[in-house]
Amino acid sequence: MVTAPTTLRDIARACNVSVSTVSRALADNPAIAKKTRQLIQETAKELNYRPNAQARALKSSRTDAIGVVVPSLVNPFFAAMAAAIEDEANQAGYATIITSSGESSPKITEAIEALRARQVDGIIAVPHIEAAEMLEDVALSIPLLFIDRHLEGSNIPAVISDAAPGIKAALEALNSRGHHKVGYLAGPQTTSTGRDRLQDFRRYAEELGMDQIVHHGGYLHEEGFRGTQKLLEQQPTAIIAGDSMMTFGALEACYRENVDIGKQLALIGFDDFVFMRIQPAPVAIIDQSVEHMGRTALRNLVQSFSAKSPPEGAVVKTRFIPRESIEFTP
Amino acid sequence: MVTAPTTLRDIARACNVSVSTVSRALADNPAIAKKTRQLIQETAKELNYRPNAQARALKSSRTDAIGVVVPSLVNPFFAAMAAAIEDEANQAGYATIITSSGESSPKITEAIEALRARQVDGIIAVPHIEAAEMLEDVALSIPLLFIDRHLEGSNIPAVISDAAPGIKAALEALNSRGHHKVGYLAGPQTTSTGRDRLQDFRRYAEELGMDQIVHHGGYLHEEGFRGTQKLLEQQPTAIIAGDSMMTFGALEACYRENVDIGKQLALIGFDDFVFMRIQPAPVAIIDQSVEHMGRTALRNLVQSFSAKSPPEGAVVKTRFIPRESIEFTP
Repeated sequence: MVTAPTTLRDIARACNVSVSTVSRALADNPAIAKKTRQLIQETAKELNYRPNAQARALKSSRTDAIGVVVPSLVNPFFAAMAAAIEDEANQAGYATIITSSGESSPKITEAIEALRARQVDGIIAVPHIEAAEMLEDVALSIPLLFIDRHLEGSNIPAVISDAAPGIKAALEALNSRGHHKVGYLAGPQTTSTGRDRLQDFRRYAEELGMDQIVHHGGYLHEEGFRGTQKLLEQQPTAIIAGDSMMTFGALEACYRENVDIGKQLALIGFDDFVFMRIQPAPVAIIDQSVEHMGRTALRNLVQSFSAKSPPEGAVVKTRFIPRESIEFTP
Repeated sequence: MVTAPTTLRDIARACNVSVSTVSRALADNPAIAKKTRQLIQETAKELNYRPNAQARALKSSRTDAIGVVVPSLVNPFFAAMAAAIEDEANQAGYATIITSSGESSPKITEAIEALRARQVDGIIAVPHIEAAEMLEDVALSIPLLFIDRHLEGSNIPAVISDAAPGIKAALEALNSRGHHKVGYLAGPQTTSTGRDRLQDFRRYAEELGMDQIVHHGGYLHEEGFRGTQKLLEQQPTAIIAGDSMMTFGALEACYRENVDIGKQLALIGFDDFVFMRIQPAPVAIIDQSVEHMGRTALRNLVQSFSAKSPPEGAVVKTRFIPRESIEFTP
C-alpha cells in the first residue's frame, strides 16, 4: 500500500482545526485546550504522523542526534563501545551517527567536521593528540566528551578507566604464584592510556620487586605478535599485554612458537571479550568494562544538554579477572 | 581561537555581491558569470565556509546520509560490514547513521522509523522476516537495499553471498582427506542464509556420499557450543559451523571437551576474522568477504540515487580457505 506521509494539514482537516493549532497541540502548548490537544495528539497517532526531524531540528536547533567518533569498528573494543553508546542513546531518544577516524589526525578532523555540518547535539570522541587544537576549538561550540583517552593539558572532560587497580591485582596474582620476571607490551606513548598503564606497571612491579622487561609496541595485533616474540627471547615467565589487540598478537605468537600458555608462560590480556575465553587456556584479563564506560559517557553527555553546562567526565576502575592462563607455578 | 561559523553574508561582504548571488554561485548556477562564481567559491573555501547540512537537506531534500541497520555491532561480522559500508560511504561523500536492530522485529521497526524521520537518502539493512511487511512499505518511499539476507517472496534487492562454492569446496577438502561423517551446525531456518547453507550442505554431502549429522542451532555462540557437544556424541570426524558465532562456540566446546582440533577433529568455520587464526590450529574457513559485500551494497545504493531507480542487488561468491584445523587423516 502506497501512502503519502501524513502532514499537519491532514491532521488539521481530520480534527477540523487550523494547522497552527495542530502544530501547537503537538508541541503540547497549554494555549490549546487540553481536550483539543488530546484529540489532535491521538489523531496524529492514528494517522501515523511522523514529524520531519530536519524541519524540527532547524526550528529547535536540536537534532536529537549524537556523534560518535571511534578509531575503528573492526577493533572489538571500539565496536563494543559504540554499541553501548548507541543502545543507551536509543533508550534516551537519541540517534547516533557513528564514524571511525582511524588513528590518524586528518581523518578525525574530517569525521568531526562532518558531524558538525550535521549539527549533532553533542559528540563523544576518542581523541587523537595531533588533532588536539581542533578538538579544543570544537568544544567551544558544541558539547564534547572524550572517551577512553584524555588529552594532556586539555580541560575537555573524559570518561576513562583507571588501569591501576587491575594492573596491581594482576601483578600480585603473578607474584603470589612465583613469577618474578614479567614482560610488558606497552601501548603508544602518545596516548594517555599507553603512558598511564606503563607507569602503573612499572610502579607495582617495582613495589613487588619483580624484574621488568618492556617492549614498546602499539595498539596493533602485529605489534603484540612481534613484541611477544622479542620478549620471549629474554625468557620471562609471564607477559602482560597492554591492550586487547596486542593480547591477540601475543596469543598468536605463543601458538606459533609452541609456547604452552598456562603451563610454560602466564599470559594476561586487556579487556574481556569472548575471544579471550575461546582459547585452550582462557586468558586472565585486566578489564575496563567498556560497556559501562560507553553508557556512562552517553548519560553524562545527555545530562549536560539539560544542565546547559559542559559534560562531566568519569573514571571507571579496572578489575582483574584471573583465569587458567596464569594457573601454574614457574 | 573562537571563530563564529562563516555565513553566506560573510562571503557576500568579502566579494561585494549579494547573498543570493553567493548562494547561487555555491550551487554552481550558470546564471552567475563564471569568473564571479570562481571568486565566490574560492572565497568560501578561504573563509572555511561549512554549509549547514540540515538547511541544505530541507531545500534539496537530500541529506547526504545513509542509514545502516545491522542486528548487532558486537557480532564481528556485522561490525566489519558496518565499517566497510561506512568507509565506502565517506569516500563517496556520505555520512552513515548506524543503528542496530537486535534480531527482534519491534527493534528493526523502531530503527527504520528513526532513520526515516531523519530523512536519510537511502537505507542498507539486514532484514528480519517478522518486519517483512513494514520493510516492503519503506521500500516504496525510500531506496532500500538488503544485505546479508533476502526475504522470501520479496522484490527488494539484496547483496548476499552464495554459500554453495565455499561449502562445496569445504566438503571436497574433507572428503579427499578421508572424512566421511560430517556434523553441521545449521543457522536459524527463518533466515535465508540459514536455509540456503543447510540446503547446500545437504546437497554436496549427498553428492560426495558422506554421512550427515545436522544440529539445528542459531546464530549464537551458545548454540555453537551446545550443538558441538551434541554432535560430538555421535562421533563425526569433522564439523562445519554455519556462521562465525557458532564457530566460536564450536572452538570453545572442543577446548572444554579436550578434543584436539586438527588432530582428532576437523573444524571448518564461517567468515575469516582474525580470531579464527588466533588459535593453536588456525581454523579453515568458508569466507563470504563481508568487506566486499558492504562496499558493493554502498556503491549500488549510491548509484541508484543518480539513476533514480531502485538499487541493484548482487551475489558475492564464497570461497574456501583451507588451514591447519583440517590437516589430518582420521
